[in-house]
Amino acid sequence: MAKIKIGIIGIGNMGSSHAHNISQGKVKGAELAAVCDIDPARLEWARGNLDVENLDYYANQEDFFAEADIDAVIVATPHYDHPPLAIKAMKNDLHVLIEKPAGVYTKQVKEMNQVAKKSDSVFAIMYNQRTRPVFQKLKDIIDSGELGEIRRTNWLITSWYRSQSYYDSGGWRATWEGEGGGVLLNQCPHNLDLWQWTCGRPKRVRAFCYFGKYHDIEVEDDVTAYVEYENGATGVFITSTADAPGTDRLEVTGNRGKILVENNQLTFWRLRTPERKFNAEYEGGFGSPETWKCQIPVHGSTTGHVGILNDWINSIEKGTDLLSPGIEGINGLEISNAMHLSAWLDDWVDIPVDEDLFYEKLQEKIKESDFQKEVKDSKTLDVSGTH
Amino acid sequence: MAKIKIGIIGIGNMGSSHAHNISQGKVKGAELAAVCDIDPARLEWARGNLDVENLDYYANQEDFFAEADIDAVIVATPHYDHPPLAIKAMKNDLHVLIEKPAGVYTKQVKEMNQVAKKSDSVFAIMYNQRTRPVFQKLKDIIDSGELGEIRRTNWLITSWYRSQSYYDSGGWRATWEGEGGGVLLNQCPHNLDLWQWTCGRPKRVRAFCYFGKYHDIEVEDDVTAYVEYENGATGVFITSTADAPGTDRLEVTGNRGKILVENNQLTFWRLRTPERKFNAEYEGGFGSPETWKCQIPVHGSTTGHVGILNDWINSIEKGTDLLSPGIEGINGLEISNAMHLSAWLDDWVDIPVDEDLFYEKLQEKIKESDFQKEVKDSKTLDVSGTH
Repeated sequence: MAKIKIGIIGIGNMGSSHAHNISQGKVKGAELAAVCDIDPARLEWARGNLDVENLDYYANQEDFFAEADIDAVIVATPHYDHPPLAIKAMKNDLHVLIEKPAGVYTKQVKEMNQVAKKSDSVFAIMYNQRTRPVFQKLKDIIDSGELGEIRRTNWLITSWYRSQSYYDSGGWRATWEGEGGGVLLNQCPHNLDLWQWTCGRPKRVRAFCYFGKYHDIEVEDDVTAYVEYENGATGVFITSTADAPGTDRLEVTGNRGKILVENNQLTFWRLRTPERKFNAEYEGGFGSPETWKCQIPVHGSTTGHVGILNDWINSIEKGTDLLSPGIEGINGLEISNAMHLSAWLDDWVDIPVDEDLFYEKLQEKIKESDFQKEVKDSKTLDVSGTH
Repeated sequence: MAKIKIGIIGIGNMGSSHAHNISQGKVKGAELAAVCDIDPARLEWARGNLDVENLDYYANQEDFFAEADIDAVIVATPHYDHPPLAIKAMKNDLHVLIEKPAGVYTKQVKEMNQVAKKSDSVFAIMYNQRTRPVFQKLKDIIDSGELGEIRRTNWLITSWYRSQSYYDSGGWRATWEGEGGGVLLNQCPHNLDLWQWTCGRPKRVRAFCYFGKYHDIEVEDDVTAYVEYENGATGVFITSTADAPGTDRLEVTGNRGKILVENNQLTFWRLRTPERKFNAEYEGGFGSPETWKCQIPVHGSTTGHVGILNDWINSIEKGTDLLSPGIEGINGLEISNAMHLSAWLDDWVDIPVDEDLFYEKLQEKIKESDFQKEVKDSKTLDVSGTH
């Protein structure tokens, strides 16, 4: 079987990492055929660093789509360009894998999803954290009903530390115009996705975001969000790029106990009697349900970016289900949009988000921006182990 | 030296526990001289269960204050009566220890504090959790500057499980008229006090309270509150009486690291370089300050109720400083009032709280209440280890 020929648009931090993984043979059945970047320095970097025979280089996406001999495209550009480039790729009958987030605002992501639904392209998103066995197990336990109906979720995810030099490393980073947000758009898409993937989507959000609180940036670097779910459950999501050392601790409480995901381990405090039943029947005043602390076995390893690349190629070749379908990218983004909008309006925001209002407010931020970004050096950062 | 003669008003769960501690000689220099309760069943219980010679029994507070031969009073009635009874005791030149909370609304507590400031009474509050060495150590580390300026506090304190039978055990429990609140007024005063004692007082609050969500009660049994501090720090306080098993986890992040108080242990992740300095000076893009995980020694034992009783008697006898001065009772209550008011108004509430508005809204709740409480049995619950 001929190898799937991959083109990559955007050879920045992530694109170059994917290029290495493919060129080093880590993605079975795929070969790197073309790369594209509008920045001559990145193309120059690719020429010097990617040891691939017959690799084609493109300086703009028009030539890339018109000329490159490829079957599939990885979109690893700044966020805003994910939907239009994915749409263009689908319309060129190419399979597509987009980097996260799916886009910056749901309005454009919906359009991408509509094209995807009508297309035969295999469309995936780089939610590489879905390959973490501990989250797959969490989803398994919740979906199976062992935890009972969820009533509280609490994710303290402040382990995304970034110093000022990180923000200074790219001109598009952490600006409304270039990135469309901060920690919610860049670091947290994984967490927002895993949160909704395992615990479901909230129905409304009340969020508190601080913009440039700890860094010289115009977007948010500190967020506390409160959410309510359809069944009355509540949740809190707290994130920041300034906490050192941060914490990554997800706790989910249900009618039948509590699950904690921390340090890549999963602990389940299982109630022998469901709480609702105990509450109704117990007559002793003080007292609580008998609880069994269970250490849940978590097998397998986190295959990460390489895992998602292989999953995508596998689906192209064999028609298998995707672990991370591209059309699910909207779910986490919608929560992120709701958090931004809630902070801007200082009010509750329902999900689904009023997409026109969000778009309008985002445009205001871009228009009103007087932020002068001082880019010290547009270099390729080593991202191993960070995303 | 003659023993300090103690009278107790309110021989319910807590009052009877204090009576036992004193009558069993656990409070040095004190003796139980009188008890007072308007419920004949409780007085009957006292007659049958307190093995004290020459103990006087009073069926109303008028006779108690007029006739009892005592030096000091413990007020262990339902919450609303704490301030008026404390004031009456002070005006009778008696030393006073009140149960928590200091009252139900700050308006009445301020009045109590004004009387206290003009009085020679030694006035304490039963914040027995201030005797926990782990919180004393937390306060020590924060006050000493080792943690640096605080920027985030997060207390997940859902370990106050109560079943319906608990709420059914007393007619005043969990009603606006009888108790003035739920988990915030009954279970959390300790946590709210320890939170502000160690981390300082917030400047504004946005809280989400659910009333009778998991129990047949009219007051709150599920709360998530977001706070902002004067210096820009933020915090979250989450509590419930329905989570099983609950969590008790306080994390405080500062410029110089992070402290975790959990399972009665204190862990300090100390940054070798303060975060603000690292952020400004580090040039490597990805990277974070060197962190030392320090297990902080915590010595001594939690003396609890008996500790506070001894501290109070000691202060009466020797003029020593109180660990838990009565006038500090208002600090935690003010946060609690702000949380209630924020939930009622569905809006931000500043601290200090608008005390007249809070009082007005509380009266509305009492007036509008159509809750019919079904009291199954007014019994004395065993409170050992629960408060």
